[in-house]
Amino acid sequence: MPMSFTAAVAGCTGYAGGEALRLLLDHPEIEIGALTAGSSAGSRLGDSHPNLWPLADRTVAETTPQNLAGHDVIFLALPHGASGELAEQLPPDALVIDCGADHRLTDASRWERFYHSPYAGAWPYGLPELPGQREKLTGAHRIAAPGCWVATVTLALAPALVHGLVDGHDVTAVGGSGTSGAGRAATQHLLGSETAGGMSAYGVGGVHRHIPEMLQNFEALGARQPSISFTPMLAPMPRGILAVVTAPVDASVSAGQIREAYLDSYRGEPFVHVLPEGVWPASKSVLGSNAVSVNATLDPQAGRLVAVCTLDNLTKGTAGSAIQSMNLALGLPETTGLPLIGVAP
Amino acid sequence: MPMSFTAAVAGCTGYAGGEALRLLLDHPEIEIGALTAGSSAGSRLGDSHPNLWPLADRTVAETTPQNLAGHDVIFLALPHGASGELAEQLPPDALVIDCGADHRLTDASRWERFYHSPYAGAWPYGLPELPGQREKLTGAHRIAAPGCWVATVTLALAPALVHGLVDGHDVTAVGGSGTSGAGRAATQHLLGSETAGGMSAYGVGGVHRHIPEMLQNFEALGARQPSISFTPMLAPMPRGILAVVTAPVDASVSAGQIREAYLDSYRGEPFVHVLPEGVWPASKSVLGSNAVSVNATLDPQAGRLVAVCTLDNLTKGTAGSAIQSMNLALGLPETTGLPLIGVAP
Amino acid sequence: MPMSFTAAVAGCTGYAGGEALRLLLDHPEIEIGALTAGSSAGSRLGDSHPNLWPLADRTVAETTPQNLAGHDVIFLALPHGASGELAEQLPPDALVIDCGADHRLTDASRWERFYHSPYAGAWPYGLPELPGQREKLTGAHRIAAPGCWVATVTLALAPALVHGLVDGHDVTAVGGSGTSGAGRAATQHLLGSETAGGMSAYGVGGVHRHIPEMLQNFEALGARQPSISFTPMLAPMPRGILAVVTAPVDASVSAGQIREAYLDSYRGEPFVHVLPEGVWPASKSVLGSNAVSVNATLDPQAGRLVAVCTLDNLTKGTAGSAIQSMNLALGLPETTGLPLIGVAP
Amino acid sequence: MPMSFTAAVAGCTGYAGGEALRLLLDHPEIEIGALTAGSSAGSRLGDSHPNLWPLADRTVAETTPQNLAGHDVIFLALPHGASGELAEQLPPDALVIDCGADHRLTDASRWERFYHSPYAGAWPYGLPELPGQREKLTGAHRIAAPGCWVATVTLALAPALVHGLVDGHDVTAVGGSGTSGAGRAATQHLLGSETAGGMSAYGVGGVHRHIPEMLQNFEALGARQPSISFTPMLAPMPRGILAVVTAPVDASVSAGQIREAYLDSYRGEPFVHVLPEGVWPASKSVLGSNAVSVNATLDPQAGRLVAVCTLDNLTKGTAGSAIQSMNLALGLPETTGLPLIGVAP
Repeated sequence: MPMSFTAAVAGCTGYAGGEALRLLLDHPEIEIGALTAGSSAGSRLGDSHPNLWPLADRTVAETTPQNLAGHDVIFLALPHGASGELAEQLPPDALVIDCGADHRLTDASRWERFYHSPYAGAWPYGLPELPGQREKLTGAHRIAAPGCWVATVTLALAPALVHGLVDGHDVTAVGGSGTSGAGRAATQHLLGSETAGGMSAYGVGGVHRHIPEMLQNFEALGARQPSISFTPMLAPMPRGILAVVTAPVDASVSAGQIREAYLDSYRGEPFVHVLPEGVWPASKSVLGSNAVSVNATLDPQAGRLVAVCTLDNLTKGTAGSAIQSMNLALGLPETTGLPLIGVAP
Repeated sequence: MPMSFTAAVAGCTGYAGGEALRLLLDHPEIEIGALTAGSSAGSRLGDSHPNLWPLADRTVAETTPQNLAGHDVIFLALPHGASGELAEQLPPDALVIDCGADHRLTDASRWERFYHSPYAGAWPYGLPELPGQREKLTGAHRIAAPGCWVATVTLALAPALVHGLVDGHDVTAVGGSGTSGAGRAATQHLLGSETAGGMSAYGVGGVHRHIPEMLQNFEALGARQPSISFTPMLAPMPRGILAVVTAPVDASVSAGQIREAYLDSYRGEPFVHVLPEGVWPASKSVLGSNAVSVNATLDPQAGRLVAVCTLDNLTKGTAGSAIQSMNLALGLPETTGLPLIGVAP
Repeated sequence: MPMSFTAAVAGCTGYAGGEALRLLLDHPEIEIGALTAGSSAGSRLGDSHPNLWPLADRTVAETTPQNLAGHDVIFLALPHGASGELAEQLPPDALVIDCGADHRLTDASRWERFYHSPYAGAWPYGLPELPGQREKLTGAHRIAAPGCWVATVTLALAPALVHGLVDGHDVTAVGGSGTSGAGRAATQHLLGSETAGGMSAYGVGGVHRHIPEMLQNFEALGARQPSISFTPMLAPMPRGILAVVTAPVDASVSAGQIREAYLDSYRGEPFVHVLPEGVWPASKSVLGSNAVSVNATLDPQAGRLVAVCTLDNLTKGTAGSAIQSMNLALGLPETTGLPLIGVAP
Repeated sequence: MPMSFTAAVAGCTGYAGGEALRLLLDHPEIEIGALTAGSSAGSRLGDSHPNLWPLADRTVAETTPQNLAGHDVIFLALPHGASGELAEQLPPDALVIDCGADHRLTDASRWERFYHSPYAGAWPYGLPELPGQREKLTGAHRIAAPGCWVATVTLALAPALVHGLVDGHDVTAVGGSGTSGAGRAATQHLLGSETAGGMSAYGVGGVHRHIPEMLQNFEALGARQPSISFTPMLAPMPRGILAVVTAPVDASVSAGQIREAYLDSYRGEPFVHVLPEGVWPASKSVLGSNAVSVNATLDPQAGRLVAVCTLDNLTKGTAGSAIQSMNLALGLPETTGLPLIGVAP
C-alpha cells in the first residue's frame, strides 16, 4: 500500500532530526524522502544514527531548497536562526515544520532581545494541548514546534492559568534536562566524562532564550503580566525533562480545586496523563514516547501551587509534538504513528 | 605516633557511617575504635564498604551504649528518630555527633509535626559557616550535624539574608540529589534500574521533613517570617546535591550588591567557594570533598535573587560537616583531615 | 475491530512481565487479559509500571491456574524454578511461553547441577534465528524464551559455528549487562547508589547458571565438545547487553571468510543486523527494540575470531523473543507488533 | 615549612594533567610550579578544572622547554607521539615522567607498527608492582608511566605468570573503561548523550595500541611467546576500568594454587588488594584512589584461569602510578600523598 505523504528532513544528522526519522519510520502514512544536512552532507546516515538501520545506507544530501522541494512535509531541524531564510524559499503549499525557535515568537522585539538575529515571523504553534490550538493547526502549512523546556513548563502550568488559580505572575520554574537537549555539537563541557555523575545549572538569572516563549504561552493562556524565574539544570541522562513549577495562589485556593483543574484540562488529551494524588512524575515513564506526566498540588505553608511535569525532550518536547501537529495539519488522526508508552525501566 | 583521640561510629554499615569512616581513616588525630550497627552486627565491614580496605576485616559490633562508651568521639549515623534515646545513655563528657535529624530542631512543635516521634531536644548545630556558630561548637560535647538538603539551601541563601537583600519570605528551592541521600535500605524504587537514566520529584507540596530545619536556619540568619516552597528531585547519580534557590528582592537591589554580599560572607571560609561571575556550580567539582560551590545573581525580569549551590551530600552534607564540627569541638584546626579537592571528572 | 487473541501475563509486576506488557500494548492482534503476580497481587498495576498508563488502573490478580486459564496465550515471567509446577496445571491447548529458565535445558543433569531444583522438561526454544528453529516454533503450544546472556552469546557465535569456522571449543565470552537483567527484587547491591558510576564482575569461574544453555545452543549449532569461559559484568545502565565472544580459529581462516559467514547467516533476518566492516555494536542502537547488532573479525595475532553482539536484555533478550516466537506459534507475521528501531540517543 | 621539590605539569588542561594536579595538591613534599598546555595556553586553570580551586586563578602557560625547565619534576601529560621531541630538550637532571605512550616500548618495531611515528626510546617503566621494578625506579630521572588498560591487565595476570601457572600464551582480556580514558578532545561519539546509558566495543581485532605494551609486560614477567586477544568496551561512567582476563592452565592447576599465587605476589603491596575468595572487584571501591582490587580463580570446565582486576584509570592507571614512581625516584616513602581509599558509593 503506498504511503499517503512524503517527508523530507533537513538537519537529519542531529538529535532532533534523528528523532523525527525514528518516529516517521513507524508512521503508517509517511514515506521518508530527502535527508539533508550541512557539514555532514555526503555521509552515510548510519554513521550518525546507527539505530535507524532501515535508513543506514542512505547518503545525506545537502540542505538546499531544491533538495527539500517536492515533498508534502518538510521538517527543519536546524540551529536557532538558520531556518528563517531557508523557509522563505520553500514551496508555500508544502507543510513546513520548524523544530527550531525561529518561528515561535509573535513579538519581534522579544525575538531580537534574546536571539540577536533578524526576526522571521511567527507560525502556528505546534502544541495542540493549548486551548484552541488544534483548530489553528488543522490544515496549516507552516508550524513552529515548541521548545522542549517551554512545552514542559507550559503544560505544567496551563490548567492553573486556564482555571484562574494563578495569574502567571511570579512563576518559578526549575528542572533537569537530559544532555540531548543541548544538541549534538561536539563541545568539551558536554563530553560524557563531564556530564556523567553530576548536575550543573546554566542560563541562570533570566537569560535563557526560552523565557520569552514561556511568557508568550502564559499570555495565550490568559496571563496579563506574566513573569518567570526559570533555571535549567543539566542532568546526567541522555533524554528527558522534569520541571518543578510554582506560582503564588490566593489563600482561598484549595488543593482540591487544583486537582480538579488539572483533571478537567487534560481530560481526553491523548498524550497528557494526570497522575493519582500524591504520585509524582518520573521522567523514565515517558522515555521515547510522546506522553506527558503531570501532577500539581498546594503548598499551604508557602502559599504556592506546585506543579511537576515530565516529557521526553526529543519526542513530545520536539519531534513528537511536530508530528502530532503534522497529523492535525494533514487531517490524520492526531495520534497516528506516535508511541504512547514510555520505555522503562 | 599515637593518635590523640579515639572515635566510634554507630550505624557504620550505612552510607553516612561509611563516609564518616572514609574521612576518619585519613584524619591524623583520630584512631578508629568501635564500629557498630543494628541488624548487620556480626558482619565483616568489608562486606558493606569494600572501599574501606584497612577496616575490611573488622567485625561490626552491636550498637549499644556499652560498645560506644570509652571513646573520645561517638558518631551516630542512625535513622531519624533512633538516636534520641541512645544518646541519653552515652557519657556526658564524650563528644557525641548526631548525623541524623533528632537533635537539630529547637522547636518541639516543629519536630513533632514532621517526625511524629518524641522530641529529643536540640544540640549545637554543626554548620560552622553560619555566623557565630564556630563559637558555639568550640568545646561542645554534643553536636547535631545538618541535613544535606538543608546545608545546601542554607549556604545558598545565607549571604543574602545576612546582608538584608532578602528577608526569608517566599523563598523557593528546587534541586537534584544523588540517590545516596535516600539511604541504603533496600527498596524497589531506589534500584539502579529505576533510578538510572531519569529523574523524579518527591516530597512535593511542603511535606519534606527538612523544611522546618531550613526555616530555623533562615530565622537564625535574621528572617522574621520565613516561608519556603521546597521540592527535591532524585537525580541519576550516586552523590551530590545541586540546588537552585530564589527569593524576591526589592527593585533597588542590584546584581553587584548580590555579588558583594556573597564574596563578603564567604571570604576566608576554608570550604566555601564563590565562583566567578557568570560561572555556575557543577556538582562534580566538589565530589568526595568537603567543598561547597556557590554563586548568585539577580533576575531583574522576575524580581528575584537566584542562587545556585552544590555540595557532596555525604561529605559536606553529612559526615564532612560532622568532622569539621568535631575539629572545632576538639580544638583542632578546622580543616584537619578533610578533603579540599573534588574528584573530577 | 476485535483482537484475534487474548493474553495473560503471570509475574506482571517484574521487569520481564512489564516489558511483555509494553510490547503487547502495541501488538495489533493481542488483547491483554489477566495480569497476575505473587506478593504484589491486589496492587494497582500503575504502581509497578507507571509507563504502562493504559493499564495503570488495572488491579493485579493472584497467579493461579484459574486466573490464567481461558486465554489464548499465557506468559510466565516468574523466578527461575517457579514455572515448572504452574505450567503443568495450564490448559494444553493454550500457548504457554516461559520467560524463565525452567523449560530451556534438554539435559536433566545440567539443569540439576546448576539450578538445584526438580527438572521440568524442555520446550521448543524461542530463538527463531537458530537454524531450523522457526519450524519448531510454528504451531507450538509451549515455548521456552531464551536467557538474555545466552541469546547474546549465541547470536554472536552462531554464524561461525554454522560455517565451521570455529568448533565451539575454548570459547570465551565477557560482557556488560544493564541492571534490569538482575531482576526487580529489592537487594542492597542493586541500589542505584551501588550500581551507578561503576562496574563489577559476578558469577566468575564457570558458575553462572546460563552456561549450560550456551553449551546446549553451541551443540545445536554443530559443536561436538563445546566449552566456554563466561564472565558477566554489571554495567551502570538500566538496559542492554554487549558481549565480546572469542574462539580459536585455524591459521587458514581469513577475516573475509568470517565476514562472509556473518553476512550469509543473517541475510534476511528481520531483527539481526551485521554492521559494516570496522563498525562495532553499541548497545544504545537497539535500546527498547527487538533488534540485534553484531559484527565479527579475525585477530590474527591471537589466532582468534572476535565477535561483538548487542541486544536489549528485556526486549530481544526476553520478552521480545517471546513475542516473536508467539507470532510464529500463532501463525502471525514474525515481526508483528515488535519495535524495529532502537531509542537513541 | 617549604616543600622539598617543585613540579611542573605539561598538558595541564586534560584529564591526566588535571588528575596529576589533584594528587600533587595533596602531596606534602611537592610545590606546584609551571602549568602549561598547547591550544589552551593563556586560559584560567579554573575554566578547565573547577575542582582544583586552589589553582583556579592560575594562568596556563605555553608548553615549551623553557617554561618547564627549572623544576625538580616535570610531568608530561600529552597526546601519544607528542612528548618524544619535547623530552629531549628537558634538563637531564630533572625527573621527567611521561604519562603518554612515547617512552614505554623497548622494541622500536612494535612502536612503529602501532603508532606510525618516530621511536623515542624506552624509559624505566612506572609500574612499581612488577618484580624488580622498584629498584629500577629508585633514583631514576626518566620514567614512563603505564597505560591504564595495560596496568589493569598486567596486574590481573602478573601473579599467575610469576608463579608459572600460565605462560602468557592465548590470553584473553575484555573489560569496560570509563570515558575519561578516551581523553578530553571534543568528539561527537564521546558526548554524554552518546555514552550515557549504553556500552560499545572499540579497537576490536587486535588493533588496540596498548597490546604491544601488554605483551612486553608479559615477557618481563617470564612469558616466552605471549599472545593476547584484547577488546576494550566504553562504559557509561566517567572513571574506572574493570577487566576480565583469562588464560589456559594445565589440568594440574588448582583453584587453591591460584589463590596462593595472588596472595603471595601481592603480600605487602601497599596499593593492591586481593579480595576474599568468591568476592569480585567493583570499580567503585577504588574510585579516585591509587588502590587496585584483584581476584582470580579457576574455571575447571573451560580449563582457564579467570582474573578480574579494577583500578581508577586516571589515578592508578595514569597519574597515581606516575606519582608513586616519582616518590621512589625522589627517595620518598612510596605512598606519600597518594589516596588509599576509594570514594564510594
